[in-house]
Amino acid sequence: MTEMTKVAGSNTPSNETLIEWDRMHQIHPWHAMDAWRGYDNMLVDTAEGIYMYDSTGKRFIDGPGGMWCTQIGYGRKDMAEAIYDQVMKLPYTSPFTSATEPSAILAKKIADMAPGDLNNVFFTTGGSTAVDTALRTMQYCNNRRGLPEKKMIIAREKGYHGSTYLAHSVTGKERDKSHFDFETRLVHFLPDVNPYRRAEGQSVEEFCDEKVADLEKAIAEIGADKIGAFIAEPILSSGGVIVPAPGYHKRTLEICRANDIFYISDEVVTGFGRLGYWFASEELFDIQPDFITSAKGLTSGYLPLGACIVSDRVMEMMSDSDEPSSFTNGYTYSAHPVSCAAALKNIEIFENEGVLEHVRAVTPHFQKRLRDLMKFKIVGDARGMGLLGCIEGKAEDLEAEKKLGSQIDEACEARGLLVRPLINMAVFSPPLIITIEQIDEMFDILEDALQEVQDNLNAA
Amino acid sequence: MTEMTKVAGSNTPSNETLIEWDRMHQIHPWHAMDAWRGYDNMLVDTAEGIYMYDSTGKRFIDGPGGMWCTQIGYGRKDMAEAIYDQVMKLPYTSPFTSATEPSAILAKKIADMAPGDLNNVFFTTGGSTAVDTALRTMQYCNNRRGLPEKKMIIAREKGYHGSTYLAHSVTGKERDKSHFDFETRLVHFLPDVNPYRRAEGQSVEEFCDEKVADLEKAIAEIGADKIGAFIAEPILSSGGVIVPAPGYHKRTLEICRANDIFYISDEVVTGFGRLGYWFASEELFDIQPDFITSAKGLTSGYLPLGACIVSDRVMEMMSDSDEPSSFTNGYTYSAHPVSCAAALKNIEIFENEGVLEHVRAVTPHFQKRLRDLMKFKIVGDARGMGLLGCIEGKAEDLEAEKKLGSQIDEACEARGLLVRPLINMAVFSPPLIITIEQIDEMFDILEDALQEVQDNLNAA
Repeated sequence: MTEMTKVAGSNTPSNETLIEWDRMHQIHPWHAMDAWRGYDNMLVDTAEGIYMYDSTGKRFIDGPGGMWCTQIGYGRKDMAEAIYDQVMKLPYTSPFTSATEPSAILAKKIADMAPGDLNNVFFTTGGSTAVDTALRTMQYCNNRRGLPEKKMIIAREKGYHGSTYLAHSVTGKERDKSHFDFETRLVHFLPDVNPYRRAEGQSVEEFCDEKVADLEKAIAEIGADKIGAFIAEPILSSGGVIVPAPGYHKRTLEICRANDIFYISDEVVTGFGRLGYWFASEELFDIQPDFITSAKGLTSGYLPLGACIVSDRVMEMMSDSDEPSSFTNGYTYSAHPVSCAAALKNIEIFENEGVLEHVRAVTPHFQKRLRDLMKFKIVGDARGMGLLGCIEGKAEDLEAEKKLGSQIDEACEARGLLVRPLINMAVFSPPLIITIEQIDEMFDILEDALQEVQDNLNAA
Repeated sequence: MTEMTKVAGSNTPSNETLIEWDRMHQIHPWHAMDAWRGYDNMLVDTAEGIYMYDSTGKRFIDGPGGMWCTQIGYGRKDMAEAIYDQVMKLPYTSPFTSATEPSAILAKKIADMAPGDLNNVFFTTGGSTAVDTALRTMQYCNNRRGLPEKKMIIAREKGYHGSTYLAHSVTGKERDKSHFDFETRLVHFLPDVNPYRRAEGQSVEEFCDEKVADLEKAIAEIGADKIGAFIAEPILSSGGVIVPAPGYHKRTLEICRANDIFYISDEVVTGFGRLGYWFASEELFDIQPDFITSAKGLTSGYLPLGACIVSDRVMEMMSDSDEPSSFTNGYTYSAHPVSCAAALKNIEIFENEGVLEHVRAVTPHFQKRLRDLMKFKIVGDARGMGLLGCIEGKAEDLEAEKKLGSQIDEACEARGLLVRPLINMAVFSPPLIITIEQIDEMFDILEDALQEVQDNLNAA
């Protein structure tokens, strides 16, 4: 080991060696399996503020915010100290039998932040396990209530909810389904809710009516007594930052309530400031869900943590029986004390430095610069909300269109900006601490990159 | 926030407040749902070495090792520093698109430690997600191979593999199944392999033949062309530290190989030193599995991390097609750089301080003191391996027998020792750094506690 670890700067493996070890020994999420060991990933070395540096020292604006998560930015000494202190004080204790100061305070904080009677927190290790837990809780609850047939889950095309077997089963991104298996018998998908894809001549209001009717139709066909939950992201994020038509969420929630269907709001991306609020459900969409799932921004990505937040109403249904029953779901690393301490410090930084207020203050500029990109012929749509944005590329030739995402990505990367390509789209969700000047830096690069991609397309 | 966080010792919520917040706002794993908000968990405050301290300052030997995981013990300053350094250097980067120094080195280290051609590491956030990933990888692989019908999973009664929907579905602990739903159509369970439960007059060898025959029979009945994987813990841990009959693992692995059934060795508990080796599969049981799942001891519990290790053989099958296919499984917190840095420091501590050698040196004394507990009439079996032990309580009255686990637990707790009660059993897996003197301290308390429980039972 000694020859491999960093001892005062010596004996560190070279960048080439690290890249080789990564290629030979690590399987990455979304690995191209037809090219196993056939390509390399960018070796990222350090990060500071909104910038990351690769192993050659090249600087990049972190456009995707890590993976929609690095809210407070990189290199926070106060965060490192809070983590250090908790590691020294109590790095671990079993959540099956014990409570800790950081997890108790964090549970209370989250209960205070979450809408309505969402007062109960089950901690997990990330978004997938939070969603897995929410769906399993519905199953458990309806079994306890004597409604074992009421289990179907309504989800939506282009929704993304994670990659455990169950979380992936409710994910509606066809392209991501690949060669895995899914529990298709438990899930019904509603069609795409993207207003950009509405029929020609259809108004957004008419489109919204149609999307709400899709849910009503599904309930009528399947039967409310067979449906346990509806799961929806406030904004379909990795599906392409799809902002629903106004009123859609409130109307669908009311339909769920009327049919005794639990509403799960998947706020893994939208929670913790991405849209300027702790949670988007109530503040922006006027809904009080039965469950909220959260992760990512909860710790700003500094350490793994997820949360499934459950309403008192659901808890009362689950516990309304004297029959002994253990809620036998949970992980060794549920409520990890160090991860909880990181989340508390993250929340403290948000509060002391006015991060939510900052997001609300810079959002108009961010969204204006985003909308301005519509001036490019290759940009079919530019949409977003808060510090979440997406441009959807457009070309006459469909094959050319599909390549736009990666072409924009490449042109941006050469100029020191990372974005996240998704087929013909590029999405961005920078650290929330980004300043007006840095927003301009980011969009100036984007404009320059789009111009190049457009010129190349015209030349082709 | 400021009134709630610890500011130089002031304004900290009282222990009573913390306990109340925990009771009111946190759902714990294995929560008794018939008593929601009706009971409190122990508030654990600090820890050092093999000892934990509750909020009243009472000291306990950490008998369960957290949750079978705190291998190097608590309060390691070098670990806290390694974590601090990585937080400052690079706390996060997306594993979907980038590599990092700690994850590349760790993948290489694990490939070097793991048996045979197990050279490929998929990082997760804990044991459940490692198992979920292993099972999904089998599904993916067999779909890629054009064997979509070859998916059934053979698992075992009393096996424990986690609590995502899929990991819990292959878990064979009936009592833990509670009111959750499971994917029963994908799983076949083999009967209990506990030699303690063999028929009267049956030799351990005959019992082993019978258990191996159970697997052969299942394959004959279901059809090898329908079976994708066999999953087994080297020692069924939370099922009651069940050590299989000699030769069982090797014979079952050979049967799997002969039938093109992937063998998944779930080493979440047994890996990283619990039995004196990095992994138990090859060193102790002479098998080279197709998959090894790992977590817990990988970081000594300091931070959440899991690993699904895959053989080159399986990888080659998966990638042996030019048809483009993404391995669309993975998490935001896969290969988290800070968790990987903690695992590297953990391994370095193991190596520099000879932790594996220490475990092998103190094991005979630990196992002797464990076996000596058979002198108590209420101890029906005392079994274990490495620093893993279990006593199985025995009483003439079955109801009385079922209570023995919690009675032993209570009597130990009063004396400053935590154990993990499981119905009529108590299990222990202390930090691996435990000394001979501390082993004696632990078993002296256990003997004293057993005497009291036995006396009370006789008096009843």
